[in-house]
Order: sequence, then C-alpha cells, then structure tokens
Amino acid sequence: MTFPPKDPFLLTPGPLTTSATVKQAMLRDWGSRDGAFIELNARIRNRLVEMIGGGGEFAAVPLQGSGTFAVEAMIGTLVPRTGKLLVLVNGAYGHRMVRIAEVIGRAVTMIETAEDLPVSPEALDRALAEDPAVTHVAVVQCETTSGILNPLQRVAEVTARHGRALLVDAMSAFGALPLDARETPLQAVAASSNKCLEGVPGTGFVLVRRTALEAARGNAHSLTLDLHDQWRGFEANAQWRFTPPTHVLAAFDQALSEHAAEGGVAGRGARYRENCRILVEGLRAMGFETLLPDALQAPVIVTVRMPADPAFDFPHFYERMRKRGYVLYPGKLTVADSFRIGCIGRLGAAEMRGALEAIRNTLAEMGVASGRP
Amino acid sequence: MTFPPKDPFLLTPGPLTTSATVKQAMLRDWGSRDGAFIELNARIRNRLVEMIGGGGEFAAVPLQGSGTFAVEAMIGTLVPRTGKLLVLVNGAYGHRMVRIAEVIGRAVTMIETAEDLPVSPEALDRALAEDPAVTHVAVVQCETTSGILNPLQRVAEVTARHGRALLVDAMSAFGALPLDARETPLQAVAASSNKCLEGVPGTGFVLVRRTALEAARGNAHSLTLDLHDQWRGFEANAQWRFTPPTHVLAAFDQALSEHAAEGGVAGRGARYRENCRILVEGLRAMGFETLLPDALQAPVIVTVRMPADPAFDFPHFYERMRKRGYVLYPGKLTVADSFRIGCIGRLGAAEMRGALEAIRNTLAEMGVASGRP
Ligand SMILES: Cc1ncc(COP(=O)(O)O)c(C=O)c1O
Ligand SMILES: Cc1ncc(COP(=O)(O)O)c(C=O)c1O
Repeated sequence: MTFPPKDPFLLTPGPLTTSATVKQAMLRDWGSRDGAFIELNARIRNRLVEMIGGGGEFAAVPLQGSGTFAVEAMIGTLVPRTGKLLVLVNGAYGHRMVRIAEVIGRAVTMIETAEDLPVSPEALDRALAEDPAVTHVAVVQCETTSGILNPLQRVAEVTARHGRALLVDAMSAFGALPLDARETPLQAVAASSNKCLEGVPGTGFVLVRRTALEAARGNAHSLTLDLHDQWRGFEANAQWRFTPPTHVLAAFDQALSEHAAEGGVAGRGARYRENCRILVEGLRAMGFETLLPDALQAPVIVTVRMPADPAFDFPHFYERMRKRGYVLYPGKLTVADSFRIGCIGRLGAAEMRGALEAIRNTLAEMGVASGRP
Repeated sequence: MTFPPKDPFLLTPGPLTTSATVKQAMLRDWGSRDGAFIELNARIRNRLVEMIGGGGEFAAVPLQGSGTFAVEAMIGTLVPRTGKLLVLVNGAYGHRMVRIAEVIGRAVTMIETAEDLPVSPEALDRALAEDPAVTHVAVVQCETTSGILNPLQRVAEVTARHGRALLVDAMSAFGALPLDARETPLQAVAASSNKCLEGVPGTGFVLVRRTALEAARGNAHSLTLDLHDQWRGFEANAQWRFTPPTHVLAAFDQALSEHAAEGGVAGRGARYRENCRILVEGLRAMGFETLLPDALQAPVIVTVRMPADPAFDFPHFYERMRKRGYVLYPGKLTVADSFRIGCIGRLGAAEMRGALEAIRNTLAEMGVASGRP
C-alpha cells in the first residue's frame, strides 16, 4: 500500500486528529454477529460507564450517527411526551437542544445567558421554583461555541434539590473533564466517539440511569433514535438493532485503550490543559486576546478575538495556516468577532508550539503587526 | 504497521467484505470544512444521482447512521403529517417501514404477502382505488429477508397511475440491480454505503425528487432525520449540518470509484449474478433446496432450507464454517426453517467455490449425508 500524504493537524473541535493506530484499527471487516465484535462492543460500553463511575446504576447506549443524533435520542427518549424541558443556553449547542425539543414536540423553555458568561444556577433555581411543569433540565458541560466551562456541579445540585432530572450534553468534554455520576446527580449524559476520546466520527452514545431507561419505553418520537429499544437490543443479545458502523467502533475501541493508557480522564485532561496553556500564553504574547477569562476557559477550544489590524483578513489567514499544516475553526459567536483554535485530538505541546510558530509567520507574511483586537 | 490477521469472508447482507483499498482510504483524518473533503462529498452525491439517471431531477441527501436511519428519514420527511402511507410487505424490512410510520405518527396501512411471494401490484391497484387517503406507497426492491426480487416496475406504474408517490427501500439492491428514475416513476429511494456499493457501514442516503424535497419543509418528526434541512445544508455550503463520518465517507468515495471501474451497475450486477449462480448450483448439487424459484431470486442473498438430516445443527454448522473463514447469516423467516448465504461484497467466483468447498467439508465432518430438507 502507498501511505497517504501527511495530513494537516486539525485544531478544531471535531472531526479532529486521531492517532495512526486508531485509524489502522479500521483495516478489518467485522461481521456484526461475530463473537469478537460483540466483545469489542461490550468492552466499549463498560469502559464508558466506568468513566463516569456509573457501574451498576448506568448503562451505555451507543447510537449510530453524529453527536447530535445522540442528543436528540436522549431528549426524545427520556423526556416523556407530557414532560417539559428547561434548557440552559449560552451558545449554539444549547440552542440546538431547544430546537430539538421544538421539532420533536416536547414542551420546552430556556434560560439564556450571553455566550461569554456561564449559565446561571441561581436563575435555574428561581425558574424551577416557579414552574412545576418542568420535568427535565438540560445543560452543555463545555459549550463549544466559545469554549466556556459551565458550572455543571451547581446546576446538578439545584436540579436535584428540585427533584427534576438532569440531561447533560458533554460532547466536547467527555473523557477529558471529570464527570462522576456519584457526585454529580444526573439522569443521562450524551457524547461522541470523536472528541476528547479521540476516535473517528460515526457513533455517539448516551450513558443513562437504568431506572430512567426502564421507565422510558414508548416515549421516543423515532424508531432509530429510541434509546430504550436500542438498550433492550444490547441487553437481549449484545448486538446492535441496526447495522453498526463496525470500522468506526473498532477505531473507538482502540481509542479507548489509548485513553486508558494515557491515564484516563486525568491523563487526557492534563495533556489538553497543557495544550491550552501553551496556546493561550503564546497567543497573548503576540497581542491576541482570548474571549474568556482563564477561570472559565475549558481546555478544549479557545476563542480568539479578531485582530484590529486592517491587514488581517481571516479567510486569508485560515488558508495560509491550512497550507502550513494547521486547520483552524471559524467563529460562530454573536458576542464578538472571533475565530477558534481547538486543543483536543492527538496533539501535544510540539503541535501547539508549531501552530504558534505558524501563526507568527503568517502574521508576518500578511504584514500584521499584532494580534491585538 | 503490522497487517491485521486475515479476515473471514462475510457471506452476509452487511456489514460485508470490502476491498483493501476501500479500507485504506480511512487512514486519513479529514477536516469537515476542508476543500478536498467538500469535493469528495460532491463527487459522491453526483455519482449516486447519476446511478439512477436522476440528473437535474433528483438530489442525493446523505445521512449519518445505518440504512434504517435513511429509511426513517425518507418516510418522516416526505410523508406529510396529514399523509398516509401504504406499505407492500413481504418480509422484515417491509414490516420495519410500517413500524417506523407507526412510531413517528403517520397514518399507515399495509398489504402483506408471504415471504416467498412477491408483493402484488394487483392488490395495490385495488387498494389505491379504494383508499383515496393514501398519499405514498412504500416498497422494498429486494426484500433481504428472503432475497426475493419485488416487481418494482409494475408497482411504480400502478402507483403513478393512481397519482400517488412511491418511496423505495433499495438498501440491498442499489448499485447492483438496475433502477432508472426516467423509466420507473418514483419520488425517493433510500440505500446505504455498505451493501452492493461495497463501502463500509456508517452512512446512508436518500435520492429524492427535488420538487418533493422543496415541498417537504417542516414535515419531519426529527431534527437529525430531516432530509429537507440536510439537503438545504448541502445546497447552502456543500457541508453536512452535523459532524459527518469523514473516514466512512472517504471509504465510500473510493468504493464508488471501484464500482465505476467495474462497469457500474451492469458490471457489479454481473459479478453478483455469477456469484449467485455458482452458489445456487453448488448448493443444489449437495441436495440443498433454495427457498425461491430462480425467477424470483435476486443475486444478493440466497435463503436455503434447513437440511432434514438429524446430524445437521445450524449453530455448529455456522461455527465450523466461521472457522473455515466463511461467515453465514441466520434465517429470519417465518415461512420456512432456513439460513442465508449472501453473495454481495468484494467476493467473486473463487470465494463462492471456496464457500461451497467449505460447506461440503463441514457436512462431511458433521456426518450429514445430504443438504436435502
Ligand atoms: C457541545 C456539543 N454538542 C453537540 C455537538 C454536536 O455533535 P455533532 O457535530 O457530532 O453532531 C457538538 C459538536 O461539536 C458539541 O460541541
Ligand atoms: C432491504 C433492507 N432495508 C433496510 C435495511 C436496514 O439497514 P441497516 O441495517 O443498515 O439499518 C436492510 C439491512 O439489511 C435491508 O436489507
């Protein structure tokens, strides 16, 4: 075989750069009823449950598709047709949960804060006191729109105190930021193979409290997105109801082994924190300003304010960075003109320093004196 | 890198055996906004439309997930909430479409024939005359439950004559059995990357008449399974709304090149027909009986009646065949005790003869005198 050309580093929140060994795990064709494939799935499911300390109480329900499919399945399966969802919104992924509830016909309300502010447990407390119809609260752990870390623990405590159930979109945090279901009361958490777990895209999963799964029969608005049915399928014969993305799962299994070898959530999180620190310090040294104060910055993706220098033009900057081997991420924010640089994926200090060097050279080439906004 | 051990041949309707080059196309990480990745998707979408002669009239809407996700998206997006679906059923996949309509809340009715009989255009004609509420008819081109070929052309003509819209589940036939939208009036056809097109599993697609897509805004019961929105996304910026399974798509692109190189639908179909012929003749020479008469047998999967010899035991037979490197497929039929052998995937005459040889040796080993039922 001929080796493919060198890929650029993906400084994005996904699809992101994965290890060569993760990709090589896809060089086999698995039968979906094959004993070894069934073991592989069991291993994945067990590892995911263990990652949140959910042994016994939680079940992992993998689902074909992207992360949004898992989030929609979580909401559609767990919020009953007569339920009501309250979403804490401070970015695009919070808004997406509101949209999902609207489209699938669940009553929904939201509390919105600005994209550069964490969601408010105090506002949630008041809203839950006022609205007894709310059965479920949904929140994004790390809102990838800005890279902000939401106060998940306090949100969970408020929700539990009011006797409501908490649904977490942990897409861009799972596997790198701690989340322990024994300390953080929650009903379900959705994430995907392709972010901090460093697998390839093509499957999501939801970790759900078993009692909630059992009670969810017949709730779902969809056949394929019915997590209750999907779970029953796994429990019955350890197989997927519908054709699984076998190669993606083989890569995911390998990615989880590499995650464990790196020291699990603690090890993975430490590498990303170091990536983030190098990136933010280096950017500031060039005059750039990051959107978020350090205390709110999750080590996932950094939002950078657009430089004021008229010589700076983002599309050109993006293209030149791409040619140097670094793929950045456009901004999606309304509060500030900005772009984003991810620090997750199979990247370390060397790649972060390489990216900074490429930024420095690109600015020089474009005649931009400083990154100052 | 170390090469993986030799995989068994998958004589199943999917996941199935793919070429080494298709799998090697997954050894790269693509950014989802990357120009080359965007081109790759455009190439896939164009090739799929061309395969049914749908240029101009049809659009290809790829969708994350397995084939069932595409079928659910087709029904949920195209049958309006006030519509009514009539499904022609002669196996599990017809039943699945009925179930989808029920779960997502669309009025549905069905006409069922036995699993070893084709669906009936005559019965459809009568039903459409009697029930003006039916807006859409759904049929499976090759019902993989038995391997039977349904009379799609006549079903399409009857449906068109009554002015209703036809939805086709062509999952296990697409790319190997001809389907030309200029000759067969239809509104949409759903299939997946992983059957006769010989990609890896992880994406499906629906080819939809553009006028129907345009009219389908707001129909869908789901955000992620909304083909109208997904299509608008592609038309707007040639990108996926939600993270695409980049590696699966790179493999699919390669698989479509290999499909074209083999002579497209005609070439692929010819290989499968030869596979099927070798298999059926060889099985008959050992005394086995196939469920279907040759005229109804699609060159996709062959249903074989269980041998009567008491020394024959399917689980043991399956395991021994597996050890010899051939994965068979259990039966799913109600009309006859049976098992199934697929003839699709990257397999040719040599593998079919190898499978027959393995069957012969396995029967001898088990002390089974004949395959006679
Ligand atoms: C917090 C969050 N939720 C949901 C999603 C959606 O995931 P996907 O793009 O895989 O559908 C993302 C993707 O970046 C995300 O960051
Ligand atoms: C005719 C038909 N329809 C639908 C499906 C479902 O596809 P998937 O298993 O990819 O969801 C299959 C799978 O074999 C099939 O053969």
